[in-house]
Amino acid sequence: MSSFTPTERTQVKRLPKRGMYDHETVFKILDEAFVCHVGFVVDGQPYVIPTNFGRVGETLYLHGSAASRMLRTLSEGIPVCVTVTLVDGLVLARSAFHHSANYRSVVVLGTARLVEDPTEKMEALRLFTEHIMKGRWEQIRWPTELELKATTVLALPLEEVSAKVRMGDPKDDEEDYELPIWAGVLPLPVVAAAPIPDTRLKAGIAVPENVTKYSRGGKF
Amino acid sequence: MSSFTPTERTQVKRLPKRGMYDHETVFKILDEAFVCHVGFVVDGQPYVIPTNFGRVGETLYLHGSAASRMLRTLSEGIPVCVTVTLVDGLVLARSAFHHSANYRSVVVLGTARLVEDPTEKMEALRLFTEHIMKGRWEQIRWPTELELKATTVLALPLEEVSAKVRMGDPKDDEEDYELPIWAGVLPLPVVAAAPIPDTRLKAGIAVPENVTKYSRGGKF
Repeated sequence: MSSFTPTERTQVKRLPKRGMYDHETVFKILDEAFVCHVGFVVDGQPYVIPTNFGRVGETLYLHGSAASRMLRTLSEGIPVCVTVTLVDGLVLARSAFHHSANYRSVVVLGTARLVEDPTEKMEALRLFTEHIMKGRWEQIRWPTELELKATTVLALPLEEVSAKVRMGDPKDDEEDYELPIWAGVLPLPVVAAAPIPDTRLKAGIAVPENVTKYSRGGKF
Repeated sequence: MSSFTPTERTQVKRLPKRGMYDHETVFKILDEAFVCHVGFVVDGQPYVIPTNFGRVGETLYLHGSAASRMLRTLSEGIPVCVTVTLVDGLVLARSAFHHSANYRSVVVLGTARLVEDPTEKMEALRLFTEHIMKGRWEQIRWPTELELKATTVLALPLEEVSAKVRMGDPKDDEEDYELPIWAGVLPLPVVAAAPIPDTRLKAGIAVPENVTKYSRGGKF
């Protein structure tokens, strides 16, 4: 099984048994999340900004308006941290102290590279769309040259990466198991509600199956 | 309506009409989220770590093990950024370019203060539990003095704060509305699945109503 090599900066120190470094676990978490949180530093102040992303192999892509301050800053090659978190459930223990959440998170450290090659850039845009919804790229109008120019795409190599996973039952102190308190997990799967058609949708256009049967998959 | 005053650092620059600064919007987003992403800098490298939190009035509380590197670092009073993001739905436009997400996010900048007063600390622990699930605090075993000592609590004043909100229909280019492409929003509400009892739960303990009827509320 191929794995990332933990570094001094990515090795999970608190509750190390929750730390995971294999590609399979990391990629599954990245592919299931909608949003990543991008951390960067300007004048000593950290900023954390949520944004969409895409992944192919060991590269994570970020994108946004060419006018975005975040993307302009990151394209200068400053250190970045990209974190992705999935909350799978609430862990309701018998004691306040052991309340927790079942979650899966990935932390990526590195520096981003500006994607200038038009083919790689277009492929990244395809990834963003497919990341939101599989099959969508073939159903929509693709980016024009002007739209490509208005979009900045950054590539972040997945090299210094770790995952942290908590799953399963609450873990109470041994003597607390005798208390008459309900304990367990309340799962919070990602389940789509019924699609809401655009108020300007032309009559006679059916909702595609990838929308009606949407599933993020991979919950546990 | 009381509001936060936008600063040079919190004023939403990209798509400024999505920027919101009133207390009501900000507090509602904070109270609905399970997880915040905490950004801080060590040796020039930003780190973004997901964690639970609680809020009362204009104070946001973070907590964790006294052994946590993040909490030890933050308690030194270094600049921090706490970001909370709710993804409300996928925005499926007619063009790839206008694909987006309906989201609500809050960004808080500031420095955290170590909470040492035992009364404030215990109250913060109550807030964390109640933030996960309303009514839970009265159902469980409260923290012992030892557990209080093993927990570090930080308070972050809500002073330099902004929210960013996108909601509603896709926004396509005028000529694209004629295309025979389905467009709309796929809502992603937070809906709990059936509770999973702890495998070590004693027989005869009913699932409380705040668990069976759990609702995060506030979706739109």
